[in-house]
Amino acid sequence: MSAMVFPFGAGAAQADPRASDKAVVGGKGANLAGMAAIGLPVPPGFTISAEICAAYAQGEHRIDDALREEVARAIAHIEAATGRGFGDAGNPLLVSVRSGARVSMPGMMDTVLDLGLNDATVEGLAQASGDARFAWDSYRRFIQIYGDVALGVDRNLFEDALEIAKEDNGFYTDVEMEAEHWQALVRDYKRIVEEETGAPFPQNVQTQLWGAIAAVFDSWDSERARVYRRLNAIPSEWGTAVTVQAMVFGNRDQNSATGVAFTRDPATGEKRCFGEWLVNAQGEDVVAGLRTPQYLTRAAREAARAKPLSMEEAMPEAFAELSGLFERLEAHFRDMLDIEFTVEQGRLWILQARVGKRTAAAALRMAVDMVAEGLIGEEDAIARIEPMALAQLLHPTLDPDAPRDLLARGLPASPGAASGAIVLDAESAERRAERGEAVILVRVETSPEDIHGMHAAVGILTARGGMTSHAAVVARGMGRPCITGTAAVAIDMAARRLSIGGRAMAEGDIITIDGATGEVMAGMVPLTQPELTGDFAVLMAWADHVAQRTGRRIGVRANADTPADCRIARQFGASGVGLCRTEHMFFQVDRIGAVRRFILSHEAGMKAAALAELLEQQREDFRAIFAEMQGLPVAVRLLDLPLHGFLPEGAGDYATLSQEIGLGVDHLRRLAQEMHEFNPLLGLRGCRLGVVHPDIYAMQVRAIVEAACALPEGEGPQRIEIMVPMACTGAELALIRGQIERVSSEVLRKAGRDVPLHVGAMIEVPRAALMAGDLAREASFFSFGSNDLTQTTLGMGREDAARFMGRYLDHRIYGTDPFITLDAEGVGQLIALAMERGRATRPDLEIGLCGEHGADPASIALCLGWGMDYVSASPYRVPVARLAAAQAALKA
Amino acid sequence: MSAMVFPFGAGAAQADPRASDKAVVGGKGANLAGMAAIGLPVPPGFTISAEICAAYAQGEHRIDDALREEVARAIAHIEAATGRGFGDAGNPLLVSVRSGARVSMPGMMDTVLDLGLNDATVEGLAQASGDARFAWDSYRRFIQIYGDVALGVDRNLFEDALEIAKEDNGFYTDVEMEAEHWQALVRDYKRIVEEETGAPFPQNVQTQLWGAIAAVFDSWDSERARVYRRLNAIPSEWGTAVTVQAMVFGNRDQNSATGVAFTRDPATGEKRCFGEWLVNAQGEDVVAGLRTPQYLTRAAREAARAKPLSMEEAMPEAFAELSGLFERLEAHFRDMLDIEFTVEQGRLWILQARVGKRTAAAALRMAVDMVAEGLIGEEDAIARIEPMALAQLLHPTLDPDAPRDLLARGLPASPGAASGAIVLDAESAERRAERGEAVILVRVETSPEDIHGMHAAVGILTARGGMTSHAAVVARGMGRPCITGTAAVAIDMAARRLSIGGRAMAEGDIITIDGATGEVMAGMVPLTQPELTGDFAVLMAWADHVAQRTGRRIGVRANADTPADCRIARQFGASGVGLCRTEHMFFQVDRIGAVRRFILSHEAGMKAAALAELLEQQREDFRAIFAEMQGLPVAVRLLDLPLHGFLPEGAGDYATLSQEIGLGVDHLRRLAQEMHEFNPLLGLRGCRLGVVHPDIYAMQVRAIVEAACALPEGEGPQRIEIMVPMACTGAELALIRGQIERVSSEVLRKAGRDVPLHVGAMIEVPRAALMAGDLAREASFFSFGSNDLTQTTLGMGREDAARFMGRYLDHRIYGTDPFITLDAEGVGQLIALAMERGRATRPDLEIGLCGEHGADPASIALCLGWGMDYVSASPYRVPVARLAAAQAALKA
Repeated sequence: MSAMVFPFGAGAAQADPRASDKAVVGGKGANLAGMAAIGLPVPPGFTISAEICAAYAQGEHRIDDALREEVARAIAHIEAATGRGFGDAGNPLLVSVRSGARVSMPGMMDTVLDLGLNDATVEGLAQASGDARFAWDSYRRFIQIYGDVALGVDRNLFEDALEIAKEDNGFYTDVEMEAEHWQALVRDYKRIVEEETGAPFPQNVQTQLWGAIAAVFDSWDSERARVYRRLNAIPSEWGTAVTVQAMVFGNRDQNSATGVAFTRDPATGEKRCFGEWLVNAQGEDVVAGLRTPQYLTRAAREAARAKPLSMEEAMPEAFAELSGLFERLEAHFRDMLDIEFTVEQGRLWILQARVGKRTAAAALRMAVDMVAEGLIGEEDAIARIEPMALAQLLHPTLDPDAPRDLLARGLPASPGAASGAIVLDAESAERRAERGEAVILVRVETSPEDIHGMHAAVGILTARGGMTSHAAVVARGMGRPCITGTAAVAIDMAARRLSIGGRAMAEGDIITIDGATGEVMAGMVPLTQPELTGDFAVLMAWADHVAQRTGRRIGVRANADTPADCRIARQFGASGVGLCRTEHMFFQVDRIGAVRRFILSHEAGMKAAALAELLEQQREDFRAIFAEMQGLPVAVRLLDLPLHGFLPEGAGDYATLSQEIGLGVDHLRRLAQEMHEFNPLLGLRGCRLGVVHPDIYAMQVRAIVEAACALPEGEGPQRIEIMVPMACTGAELALIRGQIERVSSEVLRKAGRDVPLHVGAMIEVPRAALMAGDLAREASFFSFGSNDLTQTTLGMGREDAARFMGRYLDHRIYGTDPFITLDAEGVGQLIALAMERGRATRPDLEIGLCGEHGADPASIALCLGWGMDYVSASPYRVPVARLAAAQAALKA
Repeated sequence: MSAMVFPFGAGAAQADPRASDKAVVGGKGANLAGMAAIGLPVPPGFTISAEICAAYAQGEHRIDDALREEVARAIAHIEAATGRGFGDAGNPLLVSVRSGARVSMPGMMDTVLDLGLNDATVEGLAQASGDARFAWDSYRRFIQIYGDVALGVDRNLFEDALEIAKEDNGFYTDVEMEAEHWQALVRDYKRIVEEETGAPFPQNVQTQLWGAIAAVFDSWDSERARVYRRLNAIPSEWGTAVTVQAMVFGNRDQNSATGVAFTRDPATGEKRCFGEWLVNAQGEDVVAGLRTPQYLTRAAREAARAKPLSMEEAMPEAFAELSGLFERLEAHFRDMLDIEFTVEQGRLWILQARVGKRTAAAALRMAVDMVAEGLIGEEDAIARIEPMALAQLLHPTLDPDAPRDLLARGLPASPGAASGAIVLDAESAERRAERGEAVILVRVETSPEDIHGMHAAVGILTARGGMTSHAAVVARGMGRPCITGTAAVAIDMAARRLSIGGRAMAEGDIITIDGATGEVMAGMVPLTQPELTGDFAVLMAWADHVAQRTGRRIGVRANADTPADCRIARQFGASGVGLCRTEHMFFQVDRIGAVRRFILSHEAGMKAAALAELLEQQREDFRAIFAEMQGLPVAVRLLDLPLHGFLPEGAGDYATLSQEIGLGVDHLRRLAQEMHEFNPLLGLRGCRLGVVHPDIYAMQVRAIVEAACALPEGEGPQRIEIMVPMACTGAELALIRGQIERVSSEVLRKAGRDVPLHVGAMIEVPRAALMAGDLAREASFFSFGSNDLTQTTLGMGREDAARFMGRYLDHRIYGTDPFITLDAEGVGQLIALAMERGRATRPDLEIGLCGEHGADPASIALCLGWGMDYVSASPYRVPVARLAAAQAALKA
């Protein structure tokens, strides 16, 4: 049987490679083992394998004897290294017990400090340290934390008792409490524990130890940990390791201290020592914020014009030793590190060192710098940047130093931050925006009718909907910051008022939203505009280079509906347009009238006139898009949305239309009502529109081909790909293809031009995937519409599923949200099968994917693995996708 | 190259087996060839292969020289046999040109008679026959029919000219027209043709011949023929054959006649000569109804107390010859025949003999009789009954002799006929029905809320919806006659009035509907109640016997939601319940309140109380069903419908609920609104309800298991199968299965009973099919919910597709409606794959299908081929399915 417990520090020899495997000992355990191995001053300790956590959960929370034996041996190792005894009243060993998962889950699980104190050892500690106040303070801290974490006693009871003790003594701060006061408080605390748990506070240090270990195991399955795992796609099977380590004390005296140091600036990436410290304090004191931490370096202190001495000035020797370790640590870990240290009576101890969190900008700078320094290679640099973090670089962000008045939190649906006046409908958004006002559109949820309002707004906030709701998808496409699913938003449209997080507000009030965090704040919070550094270009070049070198290359196109989208997409290196939707064009204010006339008029003449009007406008739309995408491929999707999506909304719309087409309002409303569909997703949409209303598609194809002919030779796209949505039989595609070819060949013949034009199928329903061999006979390319394909394969509507997906993820029915990361197991089977059958029919079939998944790194890796030619993502996600593609190429 | 033209009659030797292959020469051609071969007096002729029709359509309507040559040889054969010359002015040969598809499509395609007449041959005919009036009448008939069919001249122009001619001459009937009058009319007719077509009427008999052949080919693609094919699932690729045959004349003199005879009574199946005839007439005269046909036999004439002599009396020799052929014909064709005959100057000719149409009752009687007579075997008898026609036997039908005042036609959605007072909503239906009134529920379309009204009504009529709309499906399940998609129904709910086919009507007016034909009639039309004869039982026994003997057996269960359904299902021989839906139970008037309280209350106590109330009721529901199904398996589906399907509808409902649960009406309406789903089909339904609201499923499982325990040992079902709807991952099914087992084992433990209980998965979404291997680990059985599986695989909602499916069938994108016959090509792949993967995991996995397809014969054949254990159909369709299963077993 393999080892379950891995000692480190004080020369503990570790030949077992599992001792430094994060999957076994967790990130923290692996780091401690690593640091100890390179001779850093690490307090001795041991780590219990994360595998035990899983076994513990399955074994109905039992700990077996084999484990107890291994732990006993490891405790003996610490005792030997420190010369102290666990539970030895004369010279007591105190330990910390901490969690440590494979990836960091800060604050999610429990920690116990000062373990090993009891009524006997506290006296021993007082004697050994010569500091009774320290000993009794430590003991009450231990009872407090252990009572909370391992015994489930409400922590407020302890806090209250402390407050009462200070009041009784007439003290204002903890510092005034002397040894006897702490000792008295310990009595109170023990009484609280006994009252709450029905048993005295455990005096046996073994009982304490196993209670703490079990508490850490249990905390892996706490509600907050499960939510965090869901949000971060961490499998629950991983479990957490438990690290038990000898305590060192930064709160021993004025020659003791505790602090945090980063080997580089985590905000900017600059290579300089960064961090903070506190004299005579434990780590929690830094975290708790009761005392203000001080700067580490003199330069930083002076820059901030702060008075308290920096560590460099106050403890020059310890500081020199600490900063001297930076190079060694970076060389070992090949990354920027976040170090927790403690100075105990002048001696430096490293408690923890882990790869430091950083802003996207810092990550980028460090990666590029470290390549220059020879610390890492280009491929490491690529692998090291979280693709989604790149999105941060492309949108304005909140000034991190500005104060915030937080109102509520929702889902971070589209990154970037924005401040503006609240507006409650799309029309108001547009009207105010035209007056030059920055507005935030706040809706219960958005619909296609809101698009122009979303365009006009600087940000969008919705009460309902998930990360893939209409608002979220459209906002990401537009690059607008967006927060969805903000349950604390309640709107009273009649009164045109709302409340956010219980605070009453009205239209026109200013709020700020941070689409990267989901935070809604009152008032204006200053923004910082992104600066795209040279580092960005360098990294992107490496990414493309890697893809080229490995031969595992997948193109990244953009979903772009407007010339502006196209411009951004090109700027971000898109290799073409993978999806140009034509719905948004129809919704423009100056066109929707013609669309409605076409839909609701009964006169052939009026219908034809409406189509002719749209033809003029669409032709110009396409011309501008084609000009923008010169030399690159552009895939245009023919109309997909059901026609009832364009119906009039309010009384005003109906009145206007009634006048225009000479039918009564009631008649129009009845016609509109007749178009109602029970399940619009499965209704008269996609190329079914082309079958039932061939004139619409004919108009669109004419607009596309005439637009291409309107550009001089060589100034248009490399090729135009007409995408037929929702096709699911060969005959259906053949019919539509025939219609397309009739119109296009007529236009080309008239113009005397030859424009490279391809017709292809979107694979969006399971039947299309199954019949891919047939479809490929009629299609030059496939484009997977993975949103719809996921919806139909799972029989689950994205919008409606937003309400219950959380439950599904909690129950681990799906590992990750299938609308965010492709369901490789289910939908993936259909994709692989469709690709295989399609290429069997037509070996040169071009295959891409243009759903929301096209910007999701895990999904991109799948697409690369299946051998797709490209993915297509919204313009602001193009760099994300390019980087993800490079990472996938490296991994493959 | 194989022959394209097949001569028959007058000793034409035909060694080519294709000459009697219906696929080549059509039903009519094959019969003529067959009759000629057994020496019946068939006028000589030839048939052009149906393959030519398809080639003709593809070849852009060209006829090639090879065909012209073969036809010329065949014409020569007729000339030789008759001693007449085609176009020979001295002794002209006249021919008929008729269509003949593989299956009969009566009245759908065109026929030309008397071809070969022109200005010269008409004189020859007059001379040869010694009857100038007959010759000129024939010529004008030919111009009229040829002008209409081959030249596209409006037939009304000819009719008008005839009327004018009679008026000018002061005649009232055609009989008064003499040779010179017909001759003058021929001049008028020729002028009409020249004016309308710009060319003189063709005098060349070859031109006439090819014009007629082309017209028949063209008529295959006429609108009415295409609609007929769609409705009858006839592939357009079949094409029609063309039969050219020497004319014989029943209108030559008083010793000539024409008529139709059946070898058995097509209405009752009785073995007696049945038919009618007219002296001195052509076949059209019988059809046109200008003269009243007379009886064939004396017995029939006497029974009808008619005066005009029967053929038996008037032409005893010809009649004797005719009836003498019956045995020979039946022995040859091994079926009842419909014979067209002509007597020309005393000589009997058989023009056509084909298997006669018959009522379902007659079909049944004949099949059983013929087995007794040794004419056919049991297997033939089974193969010969159209399964869907059996449905006719099980429902009351309209008295065929009663007069009808037809108002409109809709889709024949559920067979049977009913008369009753119009009601416009479910409440009125129930109220009036309670008073003992027979009511017909007339709605734009129905929703689940209408169920109780549908139950109360004797029939259902909707303005919208297809053959598989809610109304249609539910009505078939209930055995209620139903007509859907009746566009001519317009309802004004505000005025509580409606119009049907333009006729204004009000609630309370009596109408009659025939769900087998789709006809809506004003007033009461008398009904005839079905009598289930012993023949029915005999046939059913044979059907089961065949399935047993061939070893290709597929069980037929029933979709039954009530004890009454179960009783009918048992009576019709169902081998169990394949789908017991629990939704209808929830909708009952005395329960829906509890359902709504559960859904909308925010108080846990009130929710629990509502569930407890439902538990009591559901337990009794199940107990009664289980008792009814003693000894047979019963599959119960847990709740599938989204909860918003049960929400209050009107203001009254809301007011009641508001009082009951103490929330304001506005609050309730807002809660209800929040439950709205964009695509309910893809929303929070099926076992997702079990994941999100485990208490509902727990209640249902408790009700099921307690109900089973409430019955004495041995008096319950053979086993209870709990069907989990919409599952699509193994983890999901495992979760629900765990919930089910926890509840059931608790109930069983308490009761000290052991009830055979299985848990299985409905395969209703593509992902479930793909993951069938995983699902089978958690499932004892699979049941394909083929409605939903079709909807999700095609990405097409059944209700919404009803509006455009017609277009899809017209375009041949689907060969048959995939919601009626399983889409073998697409959905079938998933079914086969799911079965294979499911059985790979669990070889004894029981597999059934319980969608609407379970009653469709073609789909049953597919299920049998895939090796399913059973299909499940609505109770009244059980015999249909049993017969279809036997037929499929025979074919396989």
